[in-house]
Amino acid sequence: MTVRGAALVASADDLVVDALVPAALYRDSDARVIFVGKRAGRPSVSQEEIQRILIELAHAGRRVVRLHGGDPSVFGRVGEEMLALDEAGVAYEVVPGVSSATAAPLALGVAVTERGVADRVVVMTGRSRESEKAPQLPAYEERQTIVLLMALHTLPEVVTNALATGYPADLPAAVVSNATLEDQEFVVARLDGLVAAVESAALTTPATVILGAVARRLLASELRALAQDRPSHQA
Amino acid sequence: MTVRGAALVASADDLVVDALVPAALYRDSDARVIFVGKRAGRPSVSQEEIQRILIELAHAGRRVVRLHGGDPSVFGRVGEEMLALDEAGVAYEVVPGVSSATAAPLALGVAVTERGVADRVVVMTGRSRESEKAPQLPAYEERQTIVLLMALHTLPEVVTNALATGYPADLPAAVVSNATLEDQEFVVARLDGLVAAVESAALTTPATVILGAVARRLLASELRALAQDRPSHQA
Repeated sequence: MTVRGAALVASADDLVVDALVPAALYRDSDARVIFVGKRAGRPSVSQEEIQRILIELAHAGRRVVRLHGGDPSVFGRVGEEMLALDEAGVAYEVVPGVSSATAAPLALGVAVTERGVADRVVVMTGRSRESEKAPQLPAYEERQTIVLLMALHTLPEVVTNALATGYPADLPAAVVSNATLEDQEFVVARLDGLVAAVESAALTTPATVILGAVARRLLASELRALAQDRPSHQA
Repeated sequence: MTVRGAALVASADDLVVDALVPAALYRDSDARVIFVGKRAGRPSVSQEEIQRILIELAHAGRRVVRLHGGDPSVFGRVGEEMLALDEAGVAYEVVPGVSSATAAPLALGVAVTERGVADRVVVMTGRSRESEKAPQLPAYEERQTIVLLMALHTLPEVVTNALATGYPADLPAAVVSNATLEDQEFVVARLDGLVAAVESAALTTPATVILGAVARRLLASELRALAQDRPSHQA
């Protein structure tokens, strides 16, 4: 979390909190916590309802912090929230955060760009808009890193499509679950072995998928570890 | 800056600092500052020399913090630094940061993804590897946001190529200089008017370019402001 984000949480009256925000980030706060994510037996609060809550609290004079997991502008719907607040005449500040699109690879020692290896990063989600269908990957490029967020459910279809559209079978690939948290787990494999590796490790959501040559060293060290009969995938 | 990053800066013996790191982030630190970026009359220290410095200081028992601007894994060469430290047997921790790829658009009120508008983000640099040539943009996709870092010098060529390869002339586009800092300035324009707008505003480096429908509301409000003879581009 950023220094600015932590200061705002510390001074908030109300925290409106997503499912993917670690509780450690706000449990020392005196603020009232309004949880809007999905939890056991209850679906998440709708985006429209979240915006209604933010506006109502602001109009009541409360200092409200809307706490997103990762960066609010990377599949976080902060655009819709800003628009709703603008239309309601509510003043706000948006504080950028650390996206799992870069933090999750880095938790495995993988930089999404690397000189001479990858000079372009494509960040996507594993879910297509308003459906559970797998997204279309961009055309394969050697110097391109693909990062897929929320990608576990559609991974088999994504990999099948990738292989069918010219992605190399031996492209280095990795999946990390609960990146940067205590229960982080990951697998690394060639693209054509990725789905089997994920199933065998029984990875759970939230998960981030990394496809590209930037994962080559990670793959090489995993293969060395396997050759020594010392699996390294449970970090 | 993250809470973790700030804590490490506060406890460091030595800070090895890039050009794009705001001095406010470390000027209260008691650590020795080793500046490795370009400055007036002196080129930046080479990547190999930076790595040599990090290893030498670590071997001397110093607590060293390598301070990158933005996120170290987004065109920050942290991959090369991790490899060099691994090979030298130096233990380290990598702390992810907030990338200007998301923070710069957000400083203009633009989220790089938006439901129903953009579900893919491509992050590139305006400079091709080992040259000053403009990079090749990916094929145009309606629901795709392009973010170009360090893109001011090659912008005319990038825009010419984009228009020649099927990017719409009226695609919303923005350039922001010194994003999030006090001297932040920006322009917003249709793609075919972007270069003229940047020249007329005399924007300076570092600059981030945003191309895509996510900038549509920003473009609309800029046009409204212009119609009212009240330019809003100097925020």
